[in-house]
Amino acid sequence: MGIRERLTQIRKKMEKSEIDMYFVPTNDFHGSEYVSDYFKTREFLSGFDGSAGNMVITQKEAGLWTDGRYFLQAENQLAGTGITLYKSGQEGVPTVNQYIESNMPESGTFGVDGRMVSEAWVEGLKEMLASKKAKVVLERDLAGEIWLDRPELRHEKAWILPEEYTGESRMSKLQKLRQFLAEKGGGKMVFTSLDDIAWLLNIRGSDIPCNPVVLSYLVVEADNAFLFAGKGIFSVEDEGALGSDGIVLKRYDEIYDYVRNFPEEEHIFVDKHAVNAIIVENFPKNTKIVDTACPVTAWKAVKNSVEIQNERKAHIRDGVAVTKFICWLKQNIDKMPLTEIKAAEKLEGFRREGKHYLGPSFEPIAGYAEHGAIVHYSATPETDARLMPENFLLFDTGGQYLEGTTDVTRTILLGGKATSEQKKYYTAVLRGNLNLCAAKFMYGCSGVALDYAARQPLWEMGCDYNHGTGHGVGYLLNVHEAPNAFRYRILKEPGQNAVLEEGMITSDEPGIYLAGKYGIRLENLILCVKKEKNEFGQFMGFEPLTFVPFDRDAIDTEQMSQKELDYLNDYHRQVYEKLEKYLSSEEKEWLADMCAPL
Amino acid sequence: MGIRERLTQIRKKMEKSEIDMYFVPTNDFHGSEYVSDYFKTREFLSGFDGSAGNMVITQKEAGLWTDGRYFLQAENQLAGTGITLYKSGQEGVPTVNQYIESNMPESGTFGVDGRMVSEAWVEGLKEMLASKKAKVVLERDLAGEIWLDRPELRHEKAWILPEEYTGESRMSKLQKLRQFLAEKGGGKMVFTSLDDIAWLLNIRGSDIPCNPVVLSYLVVEADNAFLFAGKGIFSVEDEGALGSDGIVLKRYDEIYDYVRNFPEEEHIFVDKHAVNAIIVENFPKNTKIVDTACPVTAWKAVKNSVEIQNERKAHIRDGVAVTKFICWLKQNIDKMPLTEIKAAEKLEGFRREGKHYLGPSFEPIAGYAEHGAIVHYSATPETDARLMPENFLLFDTGGQYLEGTTDVTRTILLGGKATSEQKKYYTAVLRGNLNLCAAKFMYGCSGVALDYAARQPLWEMGCDYNHGTGHGVGYLLNVHEAPNAFRYRILKEPGQNAVLEEGMITSDEPGIYLAGKYGIRLENLILCVKKEKNEFGQFMGFEPLTFVPFDRDAIDTEQMSQKELDYLNDYHRQVYEKLEKYLSSEEKEWLADMCAPL
Repeated sequence: MGIRERLTQIRKKMEKSEIDMYFVPTNDFHGSEYVSDYFKTREFLSGFDGSAGNMVITQKEAGLWTDGRYFLQAENQLAGTGITLYKSGQEGVPTVNQYIESNMPESGTFGVDGRMVSEAWVEGLKEMLASKKAKVVLERDLAGEIWLDRPELRHEKAWILPEEYTGESRMSKLQKLRQFLAEKGGGKMVFTSLDDIAWLLNIRGSDIPCNPVVLSYLVVEADNAFLFAGKGIFSVEDEGALGSDGIVLKRYDEIYDYVRNFPEEEHIFVDKHAVNAIIVENFPKNTKIVDTACPVTAWKAVKNSVEIQNERKAHIRDGVAVTKFICWLKQNIDKMPLTEIKAAEKLEGFRREGKHYLGPSFEPIAGYAEHGAIVHYSATPETDARLMPENFLLFDTGGQYLEGTTDVTRTILLGGKATSEQKKYYTAVLRGNLNLCAAKFMYGCSGVALDYAARQPLWEMGCDYNHGTGHGVGYLLNVHEAPNAFRYRILKEPGQNAVLEEGMITSDEPGIYLAGKYGIRLENLILCVKKEKNEFGQFMGFEPLTFVPFDRDAIDTEQMSQKELDYLNDYHRQVYEKLEKYLSSEEKEWLADMCAPL
Repeated sequence: MGIRERLTQIRKKMEKSEIDMYFVPTNDFHGSEYVSDYFKTREFLSGFDGSAGNMVITQKEAGLWTDGRYFLQAENQLAGTGITLYKSGQEGVPTVNQYIESNMPESGTFGVDGRMVSEAWVEGLKEMLASKKAKVVLERDLAGEIWLDRPELRHEKAWILPEEYTGESRMSKLQKLRQFLAEKGGGKMVFTSLDDIAWLLNIRGSDIPCNPVVLSYLVVEADNAFLFAGKGIFSVEDEGALGSDGIVLKRYDEIYDYVRNFPEEEHIFVDKHAVNAIIVENFPKNTKIVDTACPVTAWKAVKNSVEIQNERKAHIRDGVAVTKFICWLKQNIDKMPLTEIKAAEKLEGFRREGKHYLGPSFEPIAGYAEHGAIVHYSATPETDARLMPENFLLFDTGGQYLEGTTDVTRTILLGGKATSEQKKYYTAVLRGNLNLCAAKFMYGCSGVALDYAARQPLWEMGCDYNHGTGHGVGYLLNVHEAPNAFRYRILKEPGQNAVLEEGMITSDEPGIYLAGKYGIRLENLILCVKKEKNEFGQFMGFEPLTFVPFDRDAIDTEQMSQKELDYLNDYHRQVYEKLEKYLSSEEKEWLADMCAPL
């Protein structure tokens, strides 16, 4: 069944149910960024398989919204489907909400699977559509109704992450949460975000590819906590450990019935921006709902000293793998036939040699030449490009270790001499990366206040990259984690513009993308640290966690200030010092050359 | 009656009325930043006469909160009063709200003159105190009750600003507003912010020193508009002009009765963050209140082409006055006895020679040596320091012209040779000023995303300034105007972090303050302009409006990059070109030296 046929079927269902507009977000029941196959309804209906995108379907039009990372990919994949591509953030392009508001007919009916959107989203929608007197139907999963070979909703094995890795016990975290609730008058809190649940209970699983989370809901009360998850996913031993900490296991689906029986006299805390709308719909009518930014999200972002020590270890191991790969690639590019996929497999092989490596932290990106300009390109057997000893290979990959999560991008000149254009752009991106990491700032800055440090070299030359400069990163959890980030726009959602705190880990990844030519992105993870405190206040800064050399073959030192050269040479000195003992003598020699002062 | 006696009287009133905590903000009934003498209740009760400060009084304590600009001044003025100084923004110092929340007794009563706080503030307060079951009393002006020689609430003469200065007619502005209301379902809008009213109706007055506004309220309806202002403040001719545009004049006090008779079936638009709480209290019980960010605030901030052309003219005139003053000062400092007040008077004299000069746009600041380190120092006969031919004089002054509002700060070395420390700090502040003005950025940035450009040179050396980098500036209106600003903290209030739009005017004023030694601040007004638009999007930048030389005697070119030197030399070239024809040959020669390339 092709995309056009699927849309025809959906439209028939809409007509029968008198739904004038149907919304298909990218989501699961938990607000996850990446989702398991069961939840890929937007991909099923559009054919576009990027990680981000929303669809709106009416009888007249089907529109797909995605962001700058996916413009080229979406154009290709939507070709011939009749679906209109809306490039989010481009001038003159309506947002999904603007589109819904202006295309919703008076007194019409809007449909969406209410488990796939947050309560705050639904409240915002209803307010927006109030003047149209529109009806909102949350109970229909129309994509599911026509998706005959839909993958199963699977619950994989889960396990407990010991305290030597988490640095804080489950009981200590629960205690902190219960105190938080008590200070706000007491009550229960409902959790639906999978990474918050995994962090709070020190559990990990593999229900979402690359994100070691457990498909589950959690209700924390004063004495007990109820974990709604797959049956038998824990070992008997782990079940016992959870039980002795007062965690009662229940079936995943039971959550909806459970909340239906909430007592009306108690406060129920939820983060309306996180919890799915059907859960709230199921609360008894007079429940005292307290909408609160989830405190766990903020606690999780600030890594404790054990986590930080572990992250440093994981990043050395990861840096060794990536550095060995670059050395191997530079030395073998003209000796054997290589492709993007083979290169990525080779890198994965180096990672697998590292201790406590559990797998990739996201789908690896290896984009050669013009593929590098497609921001979240992922090679398929059809697109898999042959690597030649010229031009740039951009690879953005990361690993999950017991000691943390890594995410690193390097762009490597595969041979020949870099053109002056290539050097100009590579150096500008490098300067942005170095200047952000070297930034010293007053406590109180969010990432918005520092984004300029990374973009300035590119903006000055009239260039930009259509993605954020950096995202928060979890500890053996999601590679994209709120609330810390670097971007220049202030987001409206509360908790998306967090002040940078000591212990937060954020990526630093400026880039530039020249369609049809190549892409350059340079990414390190950086740890927020305290600097001096004086009469002006508390100064803050960053420490790089990632240690992998930059490609000196693509650097134009003429463009760099002495200060920037100092940052680079100091970084390369550390790369060599930290990695050399894990390398062969040949690799060591190569790295010494790569890291020699410029 | 001393401060202690006043507090005793207030506390007696509180006891009698069973008010446990009384709040005295700095405000008038309109949310104005600067207020006329009638409204200076906080100054009356505390003795602190800075422009910003809030007081909380209980039987046990009286606390005064002010910001970094006023720490030194407040310490001096509060000494001996028994009032606790709370330094806002300093680590460990509770905010006013935190203080109120933790010190409010259970089931106690909180009092404030409800005309002196916004509706949003009262709603936030009630929510905050809900768990304490506190009562909030809005009807008592306790300070007014004990203030026997309180100045009169005066209504000065007002006048119409012709279209050759405003660039847009009153009817055009009202039309735009009525369309805005119609698109939101129609209704009336209540305005209380004096600068919004002045801009919308193209009227000016002098009810607040330096702010040419008219003490008034405005209700705009579909056909008419009702202006509540002092009786007979307009000339017969102006009254006629307003009348023929459908503006009905009513007495200032009538607003409260007027809103009491609002029809219940119509939408009433108010900006709850602006309108005073008593006005909303007076609405009929079932009024359909629509809380909306005041659109006029955003429109007013974006100057039209006539305003921009005028502003350029006003700034040349102002630059000539300030430049003549600097020349005179440098040449006369060791020839006659000068003080801070005399210097400021001299500068005012130069300004008065300019066409269409109406008066200062704020109370002038002239701080010599250690007085320069007091951010909003204002010399009094008691503090008026003798200027010596050494060290820095910081002066921050501005003018109101028919062609716009100016605000400029220069710091001038009065003689001798600058020490290396003076040069180091002067140059760092100068670099910040130049780098912000030279910033090129993608459309979508707020001032938060650019503040780093100005602070980076200081932060790098472990220094900072405890104030924003810049504020929006009105057109022959308030010198501090939302919603555009440069600061590194994201504010919670909506509309305080506005995206920078073409036509917005903002100050660019980094500084450094060394207590007991000197202060340095360098301020230009800069106009947001469009730069190139290309495949990456719309680039934006700034154009300086202020043209006054920086003091080359305090610049250390060693600290500056070639790019920064280019910015400086290019700016100085423009200063000379724009001002020279208005100067005497002696002044011209001096300016040529001052502006020669470095």
